[in-house]
Amino acid sequence: MKILVINPNTTLEMTKSIGEMAEKYCARGTEITAISPDWGPRSIEGHFEEYLSAMATVETVAKYKEDYDAFVIACYGDPGVSACREVTEKPVVGIGEASMHMACFVGHKFSVVTVIPRIKPLLEDLVKQLGLTSKCASIRATNLSVLEIEQDPERAVKEMIDEAKLAVKNDGAEAICLGCAGMGPLDLRVQDAIGVPVFDGTVSAVKIVEGLVTYGKHTSKIGAYSWPEKKELVGCSTILKSISE
Amino acid sequence: MKILVINPNTTLEMTKSIGEMAEKYCARGTEITAISPDWGPRSIEGHFEEYLSAMATVETVAKYKEDYDAFVIACYGDPGVSACREVTEKPVVGIGEASMHMACFVGHKFSVVTVIPRIKPLLEDLVKQLGLTSKCASIRATNLSVLEIEQDPERAVKEMIDEAKLAVKNDGAEAICLGCAGMGPLDLRVQDAIGVPVFDGTVSAVKIVEGLVTYGKHTSKIGAYSWPEKKELVGCSTILKSISE
Amino acid sequence: MKILVINPNTTLEMTKSIGEMAEKYCARGTEITAISPDWGPRSIEGHFEEYLSAMATVETVAKYKEDYDAFVIACYGDPGVSACREVTEKPVVGIGEASMHMACFVGHKFSVVTVIPRIKPLLEDLVKQLGLTSKCASIRATNLSVLEIEQDPERAVKEMIDEAKLAVKNDGAEAICLGCAGMGPLDLRVQDAIGVPVFDGTVSAVKIVEGLVTYGKHTSKIGAYSWPEKKELVGCSTILKSISE
Amino acid sequence: MKILVINPNTTLEMTKSIGEMAEKYCARGTEITAISPDWGPRSIEGHFEEYLSAMATVETVAKYKEDYDAFVIACYGDPGVSACREVTEKPVVGIGEASMHMACFVGHKFSVVTVIPRIKPLLEDLVKQLGLTSKCASIRATNLSVLEIEQDPERAVKEMIDEAKLAVKNDGAEAICLGCAGMGPLDLRVQDAIGVPVFDGTVSAVKIVEGLVTYGKHTSKIGAYSWPEKKELVGCSTILKSISE
Amino acid sequence: MKILVINPNTTLEMTKSIGEMAEKYCARGTEITAISPDWGPRSIEGHFEEYLSAMATVETVAKYKEDYDAFVIACYGDPGVSACREVTEKPVVGIGEASMHMACFVGHKFSVVTVIPRIKPLLEDLVKQLGLTSKCASIRATNLSVLEIEQDPERAVKEMIDEAKLAVKNDGAEAICLGCAGMGPLDLRVQDAIGVPVFDGTVSAVKIVEGLVTYGKHTSKIGAYSWPEKKELVGCSTILKSISE
Amino acid sequence: MKILVINPNTTLEMTKSIGEMAEKYCARGTEITAISPDWGPRSIEGHFEEYLSAMATVETVAKYKEDYDAFVIACYGDPGVSACREVTEKPVVGIGEASMHMACFVGHKFSVVTVIPRIKPLLEDLVKQLGLTSKCASIRATNLSVLEIEQDPERAVKEMIDEAKLAVKNDGAEAICLGCAGMGPLDLRVQDAIGVPVFDGTVSAVKIVEGLVTYGKHTSKIGAYSWPEKKELVGCSTILKSISE
Repeated sequence: MKILVINPNTTLEMTKSIGEMAEKYCARGTEITAISPDWGPRSIEGHFEEYLSAMATVETVAKYKEDYDAFVIACYGDPGVSACREVTEKPVVGIGEASMHMACFVGHKFSVVTVIPRIKPLLEDLVKQLGLTSKCASIRATNLSVLEIEQDPERAVKEMIDEAKLAVKNDGAEAICLGCAGMGPLDLRVQDAIGVPVFDGTVSAVKIVEGLVTYGKHTSKIGAYSWPEKKELVGCSTILKSISE
Repeated sequence: MKILVINPNTTLEMTKSIGEMAEKYCARGTEITAISPDWGPRSIEGHFEEYLSAMATVETVAKYKEDYDAFVIACYGDPGVSACREVTEKPVVGIGEASMHMACFVGHKFSVVTVIPRIKPLLEDLVKQLGLTSKCASIRATNLSVLEIEQDPERAVKEMIDEAKLAVKNDGAEAICLGCAGMGPLDLRVQDAIGVPVFDGTVSAVKIVEGLVTYGKHTSKIGAYSWPEKKELVGCSTILKSISE
Repeated sequence: MKILVINPNTTLEMTKSIGEMAEKYCARGTEITAISPDWGPRSIEGHFEEYLSAMATVETVAKYKEDYDAFVIACYGDPGVSACREVTEKPVVGIGEASMHMACFVGHKFSVVTVIPRIKPLLEDLVKQLGLTSKCASIRATNLSVLEIEQDPERAVKEMIDEAKLAVKNDGAEAICLGCAGMGPLDLRVQDAIGVPVFDGTVSAVKIVEGLVTYGKHTSKIGAYSWPEKKELVGCSTILKSISE
Repeated sequence: MKILVINPNTTLEMTKSIGEMAEKYCARGTEITAISPDWGPRSIEGHFEEYLSAMATVETVAKYKEDYDAFVIACYGDPGVSACREVTEKPVVGIGEASMHMACFVGHKFSVVTVIPRIKPLLEDLVKQLGLTSKCASIRATNLSVLEIEQDPERAVKEMIDEAKLAVKNDGAEAICLGCAGMGPLDLRVQDAIGVPVFDGTVSAVKIVEGLVTYGKHTSKIGAYSWPEKKELVGCSTILKSISE
Repeated sequence: MKILVINPNTTLEMTKSIGEMAEKYCARGTEITAISPDWGPRSIEGHFEEYLSAMATVETVAKYKEDYDAFVIACYGDPGVSACREVTEKPVVGIGEASMHMACFVGHKFSVVTVIPRIKPLLEDLVKQLGLTSKCASIRATNLSVLEIEQDPERAVKEMIDEAKLAVKNDGAEAICLGCAGMGPLDLRVQDAIGVPVFDGTVSAVKIVEGLVTYGKHTSKIGAYSWPEKKELVGCSTILKSISE
Repeated sequence: MKILVINPNTTLEMTKSIGEMAEKYCARGTEITAISPDWGPRSIEGHFEEYLSAMATVETVAKYKEDYDAFVIACYGDPGVSACREVTEKPVVGIGEASMHMACFVGHKFSVVTVIPRIKPLLEDLVKQLGLTSKCASIRATNLSVLEIEQDPERAVKEMIDEAKLAVKNDGAEAICLGCAGMGPLDLRVQDAIGVPVFDGTVSAVKIVEGLVTYGKHTSKIGAYSWPEKKELVGCSTILKSISE
């Protein structure tokens, strides 16, 4: 099985570390490729950047859709996942949705520990869209920007542990989801410190797509994720245009 | 007051008719300009096209943000509205949200009558995000594509009336929202036929932004719609890059 | 356009200041008249007083229904709005609902800052009825009675700012609704102090009814707000009896 | 124990039959008095009439508050119940809320079978306010006005059975609540015809208040139902004024 | 009327005190019998013990179903109530559901004060299942195990009052439900200390079943609580096997 | 990895076919053992049987907890899953929850097609408890008892396809979950007939536990699923008693 893990931002060090997380826990026989789109923001910390990287991600899925069995979108806001599901019938899974669904199997409620506060309402909307509001104890922001996590992992792990502890103590969380792809490599350190299961989204998504592919499930093409209608896309790249032909 | 009404798709006949609806009901002293982005899909009927046109719309807002007092995004899925609210502090209102909020003031529940069935889950998600699920009696699809509405308005108005009647009779709707910008010019014909208030989104959004501008309200910059973080956008247009500088 | 702004309580100084807020932001061509019913409580701070003033308000709408194009009910609990919508087909808008819907267009969530704590459950019920629970970050009470606001505006503005700051900091509010008609004139002082948009209900309602009237929308008469059934009202005033004839 | 059962409308034949239902099932030692207010509508079929009869009901509770141990408000929309709870600390129970809570103990979900269709949104709001939306399978209207039930009980029972059967078959109802005080005497005929438990509101409310009185519970005076604030009520009756003194 | 009050745990001192609470407030003519199953845990403080005692409780109901008019299940998690409702058509009421429904009649919201923290998610699930989430201000745990309440009532009452006060002050509770059958005898001491109504579940359930029996209501046999299908139960006790014959 | 798949009923032909489904799709290196408890009902079609088989299932998990890496509970109502999670820290996954979470990754909403109608409210409660109500388009019953599925697979597949088609056409389902472990072997026949993804619960649960085990996640022991408190279990089996020692 070949899985393309797409880091929707264009910071290649992060793409590399995301790929390593995927490989660390993937099944025997799973082949991981981790890439970033050619263009887009260095990190994703708001709606504008979500939309921008979503387009770059869709373009990437369209480009490689024949070459892989499934796609993981490795940004916690799950940018463009719904659009990618229109472009291919192969499974497409976001790391936000994957980690939150997985966490439901080991605890009564989960919390998400994420980056800077402005991301919080964005993730609240994601949780609502996934229908998991009643299982989400809280979304807790740190003061970390996406890129600071890799630059200063010691500070990152400290802030993450602080918020995770509060989530468990005050909010009723029994599992923690790491709300940024860049936080993945710190999963076990947080888990050891707080004593509850901690989920990296990338690993979670890899396990879900492995399950879907092995069981032979494709994206449903009967409704929300039907193939795009045929139509003209004015002034778009060749690859985007090919989607609507 | 100068309002820029952006039709996120690139069908200019539709842009023109949207502009006419806006002008028909705007206040004395309001100046309407209706445009489309330079690029993007001819119509918007799915997630991929929503994302694509969202980016073109954000770019358009960024380009003209100094020249207008407020922005109306005239596609019923409200593509890119959240991102546009980051790019400017001037009011940005989508026609979906505007019509649904307005309908709440004249009826106990509203229904949305929209285009082809694949749009239905997309609009369900929008309603959920707006927090209006308990006020939405139903979302009813027709068999009309976006562009067929203008091509065959007689068929369109017939299908719209049929579904609107079912919404009133079976679903408990007391007001109807027209779920596509292209349906706007048919509002009074549907209203006359079914005897309940019918809301075009473009007009609704114009009235809301007029209210916000007159009352001097800007988009809140404290949370979800904070200014974009400063960062590098790799391989993007000059206008997009300027947003993050 | 002629709008009758009804202050449901019988404190005429408050009626006057409500009228001034309405006039300050109404459109050119809008004519505001602000009145109180002839009878009823000096202020409205509980269910009993809500019901009492609701009847007085309905009577007032019935009395003047031929003379105005729309009606604003200027008490934050929206007393009697549903009944008023039965009595006329012209738009009737409450200041609670108006401010909360308007706030949705500029922030991800809003909080309401209101008077004494006993009002809080009453407003929670209103928010639930409007279907806006998921958009309401919190309802925060002060220790101010309705009439104390006008008597001691300096203390009022201080308490309002304190609670508004907590709403932003702790509850995730990105906009503030002022939960009492008497708080309206303090809107800009609170807004300047906290840096997020602050909505007076009276102004919000005036903008909404201007929109509805300009767009030619009436209250739906197909369901919840149908004309009252013909029947005898025993021992009621002539004006009330006329409603059911 | 002395219970005052108030029929908020002014049709005395209906008051009498409501009183008979209360007496039929009350406990040994319970003394039932059934009355109507001196004024108000002949029947209650909309928001205006709800508000009107609510005031008459509150006045009645205020008048007799020393003479009874508890109060039942015998109109299915529970008009004025919240206000009555402010005026006395003795238990006040509405027949709508009582029947719906009681039905939860014998079936997974209940449906309400009520009078003319315009009542449906009003009862939907009541169910939402009670927080019982997820336990309510449906609210089903008949074509019966309130007064037609007593005038033509055979037609009434037939329409009620028809709708109750549909509620069980199509909506998943396992118990039926009769959504009008006047339907009470037909409870066993409907129950026998459909084979699921059928609840009259008056009987349900009598059983609840008997429970509350026997257990010595009063209305909580800490929040929503605190005693009315002291204040002037302009132009109101002596009995109403006494409430706020 | 004969009511069997089943304490699902096997601590007979607790069974005795539960029986005394039931007798203290039951109606004239009600005969209370309080028993425990022959087997099962000494106390119930988790899912495993809930399931275990549920089976013992169902067995007990099956054994005595001809001898009583109704059954009260006196453990706050309402273990096995749904199963018991299949086994007999006579009313079966749990003390958790009874107290929460009763509390809705005297306050805008209630809180539950219960034993050790691990019970909290279990009770959250119960509240959700009952559909009462929006009426539940909070569930507050103490550090008391079930058996410590009887062993050290002074400490118990102190911890209960502390949490109840916080529920009223911070969470908006206007009534308190005691979240363990063993807390029942302390109801008035907590009530006197905090000044809001306090509900013991056993008393609440007795009052509800008295109402149901007097009104002649049985459990609905049309859906969730239909009689068990006939089938073989391998390796089960004679009494259990008799249920499925 | 060794997974124990427990069929909570005592029909061994069904246990065998459940085991075959698990083996058909498990990963290389996964070893499946499928067993039934020694005692309990031949099939599970109601609350009583759920509770009964839950205890047998917990006992089975307790017995084999040292010998396996994870446990799948292969009855769609997920009987006893919460209790099993207390008894071991190794992953325990129910087939109901697994299939519903998995279906969320390939379609906007899912429906469950299950056995006889009495199961419907029971599964509604499960969906509510999982927090997935807003993602569940419908639960559709057939007229099949659990054991009839294996006895007459042709009739079974026909009824399943009929209901699945209605779920897609009328309810908006984009994926189907098979609401009984016995339906598993028919998954591809239903899928081929209706053209949307169809999920067997057993396979889904195997894929989820493989993911959890590979990623090294245990059940959280901080709250709902803490180890059982030490206490005496009167009159219970040695294996059950060992759980609480």
